[in-house]
Amino acid sequence: MRKRLIILGILVLCMGGVSLFAEESIESLGFSLDVVWLFLGAILVFIMQAGFALVETGLTQAKNATNITMKNVMDFCLGALVYWAIGWAFMYGQDKGGFIGTSEFFHGPMELNFDSGGFYKSWFFQVVFAATAATIVSGAMAERTKFKSYLIYTCFISAFIYPISGHWIWSGDGWLAQLGFHDFAGSTVVHSVGGWAALIGAAVLGPRIGKYTKGADGKVSVKAFPGHNIPYAALGVLLLFFGWFGFNGASTGIATVGDGGIWSGLNIARVCVTTLLAASAGAVGALFFSWIWFKKPDASMTLNGLLAGLVGITAPCAVVSPGASVAIGLIAGVLVVLSVEFIDKVLKIDDPVGASSVHLVCGIFGTLAVGIWGQVDGVAVGVLHGGGFTQLGIQALGILAVGAWAAVTSLILFLLIKATVGLRVSVKEEAIGLDRSEHKSEAYAGFQIFSNM
Amino acid sequence: MRKRLIILGILVLCMGGVSLFAEESIESLGFSLDVVWLFLGAILVFIMQAGFALVETGLTQAKNATNITMKNVMDFCLGALVYWAIGWAFMYGQDKGGFIGTSEFFHGPMELNFDSGGFYKSWFFQVVFAATAATIVSGAMAERTKFKSYLIYTCFISAFIYPISGHWIWSGDGWLAQLGFHDFAGSTVVHSVGGWAALIGAAVLGPRIGKYTKGADGKVSVKAFPGHNIPYAALGVLLLFFGWFGFNGASTGIATVGDGGIWSGLNIARVCVTTLLAASAGAVGALFFSWIWFKKPDASMTLNGLLAGLVGITAPCAVVSPGASVAIGLIAGVLVVLSVEFIDKVLKIDDPVGASSVHLVCGIFGTLAVGIWGQVDGVAVGVLHGGGFTQLGIQALGILAVGAWAAVTSLILFLLIKATVGLRVSVKEEAIGLDRSEHKSEAYAGFQIFSNM
Amino acid sequence: MRKRLIILGILVLCMGGVSLFAEESIESLGFSLDVVWLFLGAILVFIMQAGFALVETGLTQAKNATNITMKNVMDFCLGALVYWAIGWAFMYGQDKGGFIGTSEFFHGPMELNFDSGGFYKSWFFQVVFAATAATIVSGAMAERTKFKSYLIYTCFISAFIYPISGHWIWSGDGWLAQLGFHDFAGSTVVHSVGGWAALIGAAVLGPRIGKYTKGADGKVSVKAFPGHNIPYAALGVLLLFFGWFGFNGASTGIATVGDGGIWSGLNIARVCVTTLLAASAGAVGALFFSWIWFKKPDASMTLNGLLAGLVGITAPCAVVSPGASVAIGLIAGVLVVLSVEFIDKVLKIDDPVGASSVHLVCGIFGTLAVGIWGQVDGVAVGVLHGGGFTQLGIQALGILAVGAWAAVTSLILFLLIKATVGLRVSVKEEAIGLDRSEHKSEAYAGFQIFSNM
Repeated sequence: MRKRLIILGILVLCMGGVSLFAEESIESLGFSLDVVWLFLGAILVFIMQAGFALVETGLTQAKNATNITMKNVMDFCLGALVYWAIGWAFMYGQDKGGFIGTSEFFHGPMELNFDSGGFYKSWFFQVVFAATAATIVSGAMAERTKFKSYLIYTCFISAFIYPISGHWIWSGDGWLAQLGFHDFAGSTVVHSVGGWAALIGAAVLGPRIGKYTKGADGKVSVKAFPGHNIPYAALGVLLLFFGWFGFNGASTGIATVGDGGIWSGLNIARVCVTTLLAASAGAVGALFFSWIWFKKPDASMTLNGLLAGLVGITAPCAVVSPGASVAIGLIAGVLVVLSVEFIDKVLKIDDPVGASSVHLVCGIFGTLAVGIWGQVDGVAVGVLHGGGFTQLGIQALGILAVGAWAAVTSLILFLLIKATVGLRVSVKEEAIGLDRSEHKSEAYAGFQIFSNM
Repeated sequence: MRKRLIILGILVLCMGGVSLFAEESIESLGFSLDVVWLFLGAILVFIMQAGFALVETGLTQAKNATNITMKNVMDFCLGALVYWAIGWAFMYGQDKGGFIGTSEFFHGPMELNFDSGGFYKSWFFQVVFAATAATIVSGAMAERTKFKSYLIYTCFISAFIYPISGHWIWSGDGWLAQLGFHDFAGSTVVHSVGGWAALIGAAVLGPRIGKYTKGADGKVSVKAFPGHNIPYAALGVLLLFFGWFGFNGASTGIATVGDGGIWSGLNIARVCVTTLLAASAGAVGALFFSWIWFKKPDASMTLNGLLAGLVGITAPCAVVSPGASVAIGLIAGVLVVLSVEFIDKVLKIDDPVGASSVHLVCGIFGTLAVGIWGQVDGVAVGVLHGGGFTQLGIQALGILAVGAWAAVTSLILFLLIKATVGLRVSVKEEAIGLDRSEHKSEAYAGFQIFSNM
Repeated sequence: MRKRLIILGILVLCMGGVSLFAEESIESLGFSLDVVWLFLGAILVFIMQAGFALVETGLTQAKNATNITMKNVMDFCLGALVYWAIGWAFMYGQDKGGFIGTSEFFHGPMELNFDSGGFYKSWFFQVVFAATAATIVSGAMAERTKFKSYLIYTCFISAFIYPISGHWIWSGDGWLAQLGFHDFAGSTVVHSVGGWAALIGAAVLGPRIGKYTKGADGKVSVKAFPGHNIPYAALGVLLLFFGWFGFNGASTGIATVGDGGIWSGLNIARVCVTTLLAASAGAVGALFFSWIWFKKPDASMTLNGLLAGLVGITAPCAVVSPGASVAIGLIAGVLVVLSVEFIDKVLKIDDPVGASSVHLVCGIFGTLAVGIWGQVDGVAVGVLHGGGFTQLGIQALGILAVGAWAAVTSLILFLLIKATVGLRVSVKEEAIGLDRSEHKSEAYAGFQIFSNM
C-alpha cells in the first residue's frame, strides 16, 4: 500500500513537473507572441512616416519637395531621440498627481528580464505614436517654414507637449483615464494633439504668398496651389491605411489573453474590420459629397476622406459595430470636406494639405463617437444605444482639456520661435522654393519645373 | 493514511487545475497566433493595392495618372463596403446546393467569442482577396473608361461575380471543392476571375484612339503607348511580390496545427520558398525570352514576367517542390510575353498594362500546374509524377466553369453599363486625358507633359 | 481504499495525458510562432530591395532610371535562383574544415517535417540577406555598367563570394564563429562584403564621363551629378529603415525561448530599440555635421547618415545599451560624410550613391563597435566596459579576413568580366543614358529630361 502510494506520489510529482514546465512555456510563448505582435504594430505605425511624407510631398509644390521630405525624416529621427531621453519619462514614468510622469529619463537597462523586456517592447511601440503626432504638423506648415525652426518645434512636441497630455489618458494613473475617458488608439492623444499644433502653427505662420488676395472690389479671392504629384499622395494614403491596422489593431497592447480573461485576439480581429470599413466609408463619403458639391470627383478630397475615416475610427474602433464604423466613416468623410473649405475660405488659415481638418476635426469627432455609438464590454455607453450622455460628457471634457493644453503650449512655442530664430523664410526664399533656398539643391534635377507663383 | 490520501488528492486536483488552465491557455494562444497570422496575411494582401496602383500608373500615360490611382483606391473602398454588405454572404454564408451562400448579409456581431472572432478574422482576410480580383481590371480598361462606370462595375464584381464562383471553390460546401478542385491561394478564384473581367472589359471598350491604324496598304500598324514612370512600375511589382507572401503564405488560414495534425507552420515555410522561386524564375524567363525575341532586355516584359510567375504559383504553391516552382515560373514568364503579343497584335484587344495576360493566362496555367506537378500530402496527383490525368481534368473543368461564369457575367455587366450610362469617355476627353476631363486636375502640376497622341 | 486509489490513479493518468498533450502543443505552437517570426523578418528584409532600388534611382540621373531599377529587380531574381541552386549549399551545407559547406545543392524535400520545415524557414530568411549583399553593388556601379555584365557579377556574388565568407561566421562550424567573432545581423557578413564589391567595382569601372576634369592649372575639379528624385531616395531610406527591423530583429532566428533559456522575445524588443535609436542618431549626426561643414542641411548626406547608423548598429544591436546605440549612430553619421568626401575627392573613386561609404566603412565600424561597447549576456567584452582588447582583436581579424576574401574575389571577377564581355558601356551609350542605349526605352515617357552632361 505504502509502496503504491509512493509510486503514485512520484507520478503526481512528475505530472507536476511537466505541468509547471508547460506552464512556464505557455508564459514564455505568450510573452514572445506579444513581442511579435507589438513589433508588428510598431513597424506598421513606423511606415506611416513614409505615408505622411508622400502625402505631404504629393499635395504641395515641386519646388519644396526635398524640404518636406527632410522635415518628415528629421521629425522622426530627432523626435525619437528626444522621446527616449525625456518624452517617455513624462508620459510613462512614475506618476505625479495624475498629471505627469517623473522617472526613466534616458532609460536603457542592459539586463534582460520581464521588466526591462517589457520596457523595450512598450517603448518601441510608443515612440512611433509620438512621431506620428509630431509629423502631422509638417503638412500644415509646408512651403514657408524655416527648416531649423521646424526642428526646434519637433523637439518640444516630442519631449513635452505630446507626452504630458498622453500621460493623462494612456498611463493608467492619468486623471482622464481615471474619469473613464476612452481613446483606444489615439484620436485625441495623437491626432488632435498633432492637429492643434498644425492649426496653430499654420495660423501663426500666415498664408503662403499669393494665397489670399484682395481684389479691387474688396473681395478676397482664394488661390489653390495644386499638389505636384497625385500618385505620391495616393501611395502615401495607401501606406497610411496599411500602417493604421497596426496603429489601431496593436493598440490592444497584447495579442494574448488580457485582464479579466478577454482574448485580445478576438478584439484585434474586430478592430481591423471596423478600421477597414470606416476608412473605406470615409473615402466614399468624401468622394460623393465633393462630387455633388464641386461637380467633380476630387482626388485630394477623396484621399483626405479616407484619412478622415481612419482618424475618426481611431478612438472608437474597439467599441463599435461594423455598421457604426461605416456611419462614422461616412460622416468623417463629409466632415473633412466641410472643414477644409471652412478653414481655407472662412477662417483663412492656409493649411496646404488639410492636416488640421483630417487630424483635429476628425480626431474630435472620433473621440465623441465613443459616446455616441460605443458599447464597451457589452455595456452600452453611447447615446444611440441608450447609454445616456455620461460618456459623451467625459469625452467632451477630455477633448477640451487636451485641446487647451495642446493649443496653448503650441501657441507659446511657435510665438517664442517666431520672436527668436524666426518661423518663416523670406519672401524671396519662399518664391524660389525651400529646396534651393534652404537645402541648396533641387528635388528633381533634370526636369524643368514651372512655378505656380 | 487517509490524511496522506487527501493531501495527495489535493495535489492531484491542483495539478488538474494547472493542467486545465494550461490547456486553456494553449487554446487561447493558438487562437491569438492564428489571428496574428491572418492579420499579417491580410495587411500584406492589402498593400498589393498600392502595388497594382503603381504598376498601372507607371505603365500608362501621365495624363491619366490621377484617374488610374483614383480607380484603384475606390475599387478597394467601394468594393470593401459592398463585400461586407453582400459579397461575404454569397461567398461564405449558409450554403445552398453548393452554388451560393445565403446568410450573414451586413454581418457584425458585437459580442466577442470564438464564433464572432472567427468571422472577423476571416472577413478581414477575405475582403482583401475580393479587392484584388476587382482591381486587376482597372489596368486593362485604363485611359478610356468613364470613372462612374468603373465604380458601377466594381460594385458588381465585389458583390456578385467574385463571391459566387469563390463559393464553389473556397467555401467547404462548394461543388468544385467537393470534386477535389485544388486552388490553394486563388490562381482561378481571384486572378482568372479578375483576368476574365479585364479581357472582356478591354474588348467591349475597344482600343485607345490611335492604337490600331490601317495604312494605305491595308495593313494594320500597332502603336505602343509607353508607360510614363518605370520606377513606379518597378516599385509596384516589388510591393506586389512583397504582398504575395501573405497572399500565398497565409492562405493556409492558420499558423497552428491544422486538421489531421498537419502543422501549418511547415506548410507556410515551403509556400514562401516556392512563391519566391517562381516569381524570380518568371522574371528571368521573361527577361531572357524578350531579350532574344526583341533584342533588348525589356523592362515592362520583365516586370510582367515576375507577376506571371507569382500568378502561376498561386494555385500550386503548397503542393509542388522548389524545382517544380522554378519550372512553373520560367514557363509563366515565357507565356506572358507570348500572350501579351498575341492579345495585342493578333486579337487586337488593347490591354494597356497586360493585365489579362498576367492574371488570366497565367492564372489558367497555374491552375493546370496543380495537375501537372502536384503532390498533395504525399500523394502524387500531377501527371509528371505519375498521378494520371484525373486531377488535371478536374482542374480543367474548374477553369472552364469559372471562366464561363466570369466571362458571361462580365460581358452582360459591361454591355448593360455601355447601353445605359456609357462605358467610354468621348474622343476629346480621351485626348486631353482623364485627369483633366474627369477630375478637373493634373497629376503633375508644375511639370510639362508631352502627350503621346 | 483500493477503489479510491484506483480513481486517484485514473485521475493522475488523465492529468498525465492532458499534460503530455499540452506539452506537444506547446512545441508545435513554438514552431509555428518561430515560422511566423522568421516569415515576418524575411519579408521585411525583402522589401529592402524596394528601398535600395528607390535610393539608387533617386540619387542618380533620370536617363538611367529604368536601368537601375532593372538591375535591382534582376539581382534579386537571378540571385535567388543561384542562391537556391548553389549558394545555400556553400553557406549552410555540411561543413568542410570551417571554410565551406558542401551539401544541399538544389535542395527541396517534398515531405514536410521538422527537418524540411526548418530548412524552408531558414532558406527563406537567408536568401533575402544574400540578395541584400548583392544589391548594394548596383548603386556604386550605376550609370555606366553594361546590363549583362552586371547580371554575371550578381550570379557570382550570390553563388560564391557571399556564401563562403558567410559560412565562416554564421554557420555554427565556421572558423571565425569558433574564434568568437560576433556579427549579430551582418555588418560584416552582408554589408562589408557588398561594400567591398561596390568599391572594387566602382574602381575597376572608372568614373563617369566628366566626373573628374583637369583644369589648365593642373588641378582636378570634381563634378557633382545630383540625383533626379529626392522623394524617391527618402522613401527608399524609410523603406530600408522599416525593413531593417526585420534584418536586425529577426536575426535572433527565433521568437521563443532559445538555447540556455534566453527568451528571444526580450532580445528582439531591445534590438528594435537600439536599431531605431542608432538610425535616428545617424541621420542627426550626418545632418548637423554636413550643415556645419557645407553650410547647408544636405538631403543626400542626411539620408546616407540614417543608413550609416543602421549599418553601424547591425553587428552590435543585441549587445549594446540604448545609450551606446546613440553614440554608434552619431559616429556612423559623421563617418559616412567624411568617407563620402574622402572616396570622392581624395581616392577619386566615383561611387554615385555613396554605397561603399555606407556599407563598407560603416560596416567595418559597426563590427568594431562590438569590441568597444559590447556586453554579451552580462559579460563586458567591449573596451569601454573594461572588457580589454580581446574581442576587439577578434573583430579586427574577422574584418581583415572577410575583407581580403571579398576584395580579392571581387577584383578577379570584375577584371575577368572586363577582359571578356566588357564591364562598361561606350561613351556614346553613357551620354544618351542606359535606358535608351541598353533597354531601348525611357523611364519617363512624356517628360522632357535635361541631361547633366
